[in-house]
Amino acid sequence: MRKQEEKELPTELDTHRRKFLNTAAFAGLAGTGVAMGMAACSDEQSASAPPAPGAAPAASQPAAAEHAGTVHLKPGELDTYYGLWSGGHTGDFRVLGLPSGRELLRVPCFTPDALIGWGITNESKAIMGTRPDGQLEFTVGDTHHVHASYKDGNYDGRYAWINDKINSRIARIRLDYFICDKITKLPNVQGFHGIFPDKRDPVDPAINYTTRVFCGAEFHIPLPNDGTGLDTSDQYRALFSCVDAETMEVRWQVLIDGNCDLAASSFDGKLAATNQYNTENGVHYEDMMSAERDGCLFFHVARIEQAVKEGKFKTIGDSPVPVVDGTLAANADPATALVARVSVPKNPHGVNASPDGKYFICAGKLSPTATVIELAKVLDWFDGKLDDIDKAVVAEVELGLGPLHTAFDGRGNAYTTLFLDSQVVKWNVEASIKFAAGDNTVQYVVDRLDVQYQPGHINASQSETMFADGKWLAVGCKFSKDRYLPIGPMHPENEQLVDISGDKMVLVADHPVRPEPHDFIIFKRELLQPKQVYALEDFPLALKDPAEAGVTRDGSKVTVKIASQAPAFSPREFTVKQGDEVTIILTNFDKVEDLTHGFAVPNYNINFVVNPQETKSVTFVADQPGVYWCYCTHFCHALHLEMRSRMIVEPA
Amino acid sequence: MRKQEEKELPTELDTHRRKFLNTAAFAGLAGTGVAMGMAACSDEQSASAPPAPGAAPAASQPAAAEHAGTVHLKPGELDTYYGLWSGGHTGDFRVLGLPSGRELLRVPCFTPDALIGWGITNESKAIMGTRPDGQLEFTVGDTHHVHASYKDGNYDGRYAWINDKINSRIARIRLDYFICDKITKLPNVQGFHGIFPDKRDPVDPAINYTTRVFCGAEFHIPLPNDGTGLDTSDQYRALFSCVDAETMEVRWQVLIDGNCDLAASSFDGKLAATNQYNTENGVHYEDMMSAERDGCLFFHVARIEQAVKEGKFKTIGDSPVPVVDGTLAANADPATALVARVSVPKNPHGVNASPDGKYFICAGKLSPTATVIELAKVLDWFDGKLDDIDKAVVAEVELGLGPLHTAFDGRGNAYTTLFLDSQVVKWNVEASIKFAAGDNTVQYVVDRLDVQYQPGHINASQSETMFADGKWLAVGCKFSKDRYLPIGPMHPENEQLVDISGDKMVLVADHPVRPEPHDFIIFKRELLQPKQVYALEDFPLALKDPAEAGVTRDGSKVTVKIASQAPAFSPREFTVKQGDEVTIILTNFDKVEDLTHGFAVPNYNINFVVNPQETKSVTFVADQPGVYWCYCTHFCHALHLEMRSRMIVEPA
Repeated sequence: MRKQEEKELPTELDTHRRKFLNTAAFAGLAGTGVAMGMAACSDEQSASAPPAPGAAPAASQPAAAEHAGTVHLKPGELDTYYGLWSGGHTGDFRVLGLPSGRELLRVPCFTPDALIGWGITNESKAIMGTRPDGQLEFTVGDTHHVHASYKDGNYDGRYAWINDKINSRIARIRLDYFICDKITKLPNVQGFHGIFPDKRDPVDPAINYTTRVFCGAEFHIPLPNDGTGLDTSDQYRALFSCVDAETMEVRWQVLIDGNCDLAASSFDGKLAATNQYNTENGVHYEDMMSAERDGCLFFHVARIEQAVKEGKFKTIGDSPVPVVDGTLAANADPATALVARVSVPKNPHGVNASPDGKYFICAGKLSPTATVIELAKVLDWFDGKLDDIDKAVVAEVELGLGPLHTAFDGRGNAYTTLFLDSQVVKWNVEASIKFAAGDNTVQYVVDRLDVQYQPGHINASQSETMFADGKWLAVGCKFSKDRYLPIGPMHPENEQLVDISGDKMVLVADHPVRPEPHDFIIFKRELLQPKQVYALEDFPLALKDPAEAGVTRDGSKVTVKIASQAPAFSPREFTVKQGDEVTIILTNFDKVEDLTHGFAVPNYNINFVVNPQETKSVTFVADQPGVYWCYCTHFCHALHLEMRSRMIVEPA
Repeated sequence: MRKQEEKELPTELDTHRRKFLNTAAFAGLAGTGVAMGMAACSDEQSASAPPAPGAAPAASQPAAAEHAGTVHLKPGELDTYYGLWSGGHTGDFRVLGLPSGRELLRVPCFTPDALIGWGITNESKAIMGTRPDGQLEFTVGDTHHVHASYKDGNYDGRYAWINDKINSRIARIRLDYFICDKITKLPNVQGFHGIFPDKRDPVDPAINYTTRVFCGAEFHIPLPNDGTGLDTSDQYRALFSCVDAETMEVRWQVLIDGNCDLAASSFDGKLAATNQYNTENGVHYEDMMSAERDGCLFFHVARIEQAVKEGKFKTIGDSPVPVVDGTLAANADPATALVARVSVPKNPHGVNASPDGKYFICAGKLSPTATVIELAKVLDWFDGKLDDIDKAVVAEVELGLGPLHTAFDGRGNAYTTLFLDSQVVKWNVEASIKFAAGDNTVQYVVDRLDVQYQPGHINASQSETMFADGKWLAVGCKFSKDRYLPIGPMHPENEQLVDISGDKMVLVADHPVRPEPHDFIIFKRELLQPKQVYALEDFPLALKDPAEAGVTRDGSKVTVKIASQAPAFSPREFTVKQGDEVTIILTNFDKVEDLTHGFAVPNYNINFVVNPQETKSVTFVADQPGVYWCYCTHFCHALHLEMRSRMIVEPA
């Protein structure tokens, strides 16, 4: 491992684009004595020098115009890539078309959605989870990472998964219909942040597809978190969890020291990884960065599952999930270790597996470096062939200030966001390894691009597969400031699109998005074949025929079966009694693509959509007497306004 | 009034773009005997013939490429127009930039929003309204129409208003901060649909700005709707309401026959209008269209307010709002009439005031016509100078199948959507009047444009002001079908942008939007100067200084005052007891534009944002003991992940 010479912190960084945030960031850091630790950034490796103070971010704009023809679609022209995006604390899952940046769909999962009726229908409530009083257990969420299922090293279009950091939930999205079908709450976890599916089985070579999803826990807490051990923060711990891709049950958990951040998995299926900050188990942020180095944990999946099989686990609190011991103290012997920790400079952010399957790259965040870890050497350590796990680090090279996340182009280059520098740096991985090995003549930084502003996650088309194609790069900029028309204090995020098909990166478009997406994946459109119309028989409650529509009563429980066929609901009126518990089951018999209906019950807080051949149900107590015009809320027909069913609630 | 000769219904309409919907629509209509009523469409007035069966919608696409430079923005380039959009039954208010079609902001109003904490914070709950148990009264909404406040015939940037059809609510959006500040529920109204502010005072010429908002009720119900009069549907009635623009209280209501649809107001401030379908008071859709003609109601605002002043009103149920009688039977005498009804062909949809202040145009929906009503003649009728109110109709001309809404270019042309034809028709208003007067040589249809597909609302830049500039036309297409990458059964809407600066309309862009916007307005960006940072003193609960941060206790009620300053919350930990009612007051002391923080409490279902200098509060019962890492959910700083405050809940 080889380090660059340390230089003075540049005294003047306040070009226009950097003016305030760096100031704020450095002020915060300086107050904790970390500023000097960040001063290691050298520009020696800049292929293009950073702009002089006051200079405009010139490189991108003239070039953008030349590329406009490729990024902007004509009316009716289709995008060539899908993008699956997290929605941050809007709590949703989003589908974008690229390169246009069009937001095509929001899939509700953790938080209610009035359009879909997510959180209103019985079916969605069963997935979201309710309290004993029938209210939703949670209505907020904080989604960060979206990853999809793999087969043969590429996406197979079955599932995507997304995390909720606030309430430690994982949701699965079916990619045939683009709907959330399962949500699991991780036990004894707080701050569930990183998430990544495996790519093949660690043992069975026939299983070359995703069967597990790995989940990191960011916040260390007393275990169990039941009000005991409150004041013993040095004994707070976190759990790394494995969820079954099909059943969505938690298979096992690993007890670890420190806080998990991002997650990753190896293409050979053998290892899961998470970068860590706060290995100190600190409570205040200065404690969380008191140590000079943190780490990247590697989980030996086969050994962990063998240990579980052999009963070498405990359980925590009410949870039946087996928990194996992955703490440093219990894993010193490589021959039996379940977990290895590779040393990485302090408070790293992001770990990404290269598409050639060889490396994991941790970005330094508070260190201006990227750390390149060779997978084969980590496996060597587990196999007793490497005496020091830290020798798995094959490069630790300077990139710039605030490196966070890394993407790949499949041509050996990595692209890392520099949060404080508001830049993307393109660098060559093999060159960085040569440089780290002592060859000063190697220029590992290939290009730099100013972005607007403060980039977090980054991803390239197909970057997380074995088929990275080096065409498009998306950069999730956390601040948009002056990039859009002013719309008050709440700003959109700025998802910038960069053409990486040539030697130089070219910024081609700004795309505003509702805050705040974190991670996203981008893949070729031919990998998905979603269905546009449901199958009637997929819904247990579905009416078989519109003639079944009508009212049945069982005591004070009333079932109203309704059929929708544009422009009418059947029945067109129905009567219940005040106090009845009413269940409405609605089947949409229209078969034509895009012929969606909505169903609203005024004053009863009910609205939901039924897509072609879909069935949904709602249950409510008819506590208000009178006439209520249930109406179609989704424009469907020239007689849409007239498409109503009159609910008459007779007084008790 | 002059009618075109009736022709046979075209037997073959199934060009590719029309294939299914027209079939469905006509099937529905045919079943009720209306198809022949729609057969009156003639192509005589087509400037360009409709495409031959099977022909592609050719006109727009090649032309679009030529215009790409004007509609697609380079990175960092700003839009030139704001668009304010309803979000349909997503329940939100949206801000778009045009011509790019970028969605810049969603302003939550009627439905909760996990990002903002709308429905979570005490301040938002007070605006939304809660039930006795503290839960939100409503979590669904159906927004249709967005209109903004006027001054001197143009938008003045103070307010916008938006309706909720499901629960009869009107929300006001402040356009300085782009936030919802008030919501009012209209009493005794179901299906609140049309909405429009007045443009000046009907009496006081000094008040040349908006002071009232008019609201139509679509569903006729027993009044009061308390469980009585359920079976006397011929006596169901609707109310037209006037809301005070400043206080947001309901000033007065007018009892009317039939269903209101859209609303409009005259530039002279004297009249409000609503088009009506179902003047039959029918319950089933075939009853709702049994009469050959419905109408457009005109409300004489000054007379209505004089009647209220004189006590000539009743009240309904618990509501104290004065209700005057606007039924036909009570308003036969023009000298005293509060309301006039102009006859319009059956089930019209949409009424729009022309920017020259002279005409109201009703689109025919089930009739292939537009009806042009001259404002001066309606006023003549109220003044006793016109013997027959229907003589206010100066033209009733054929446009095509399913005309719904009309926009204007300020050069005398109107643009009407044809839902069934999937077209926009451009026609000249004065020419249509000449044609209606008998001049067969006049060609009033100027151009036709195929759109994709089934257009509903339409609007042009500045169209609803005296300063219509004829530059951009946006068309809200209800079906998008094959225009975007497939994303399952739920399709986005297709908001198409058309360049109307030349003689021919040119389709320049498809913009997907989450369903389902209805109406929208578009205006020049210089009309708004929103603020980017709040003022600390605007929030009564704001901490004056970060030093005020800390915990105070009053019995089991605990107040936790928290200050945010990147990258830290103060205090960085706080302790409460299980069972305490905890109120957190958070003031963001960061002053820099776009430096927003979030605040999440894991497992307690709390998350909200605080923008620069903003203060918000939440109240909850600390019913779960343990450690809860409250964390910043809105990426703010290099140490964002470390920005936490530890809440310790000691067991009871």
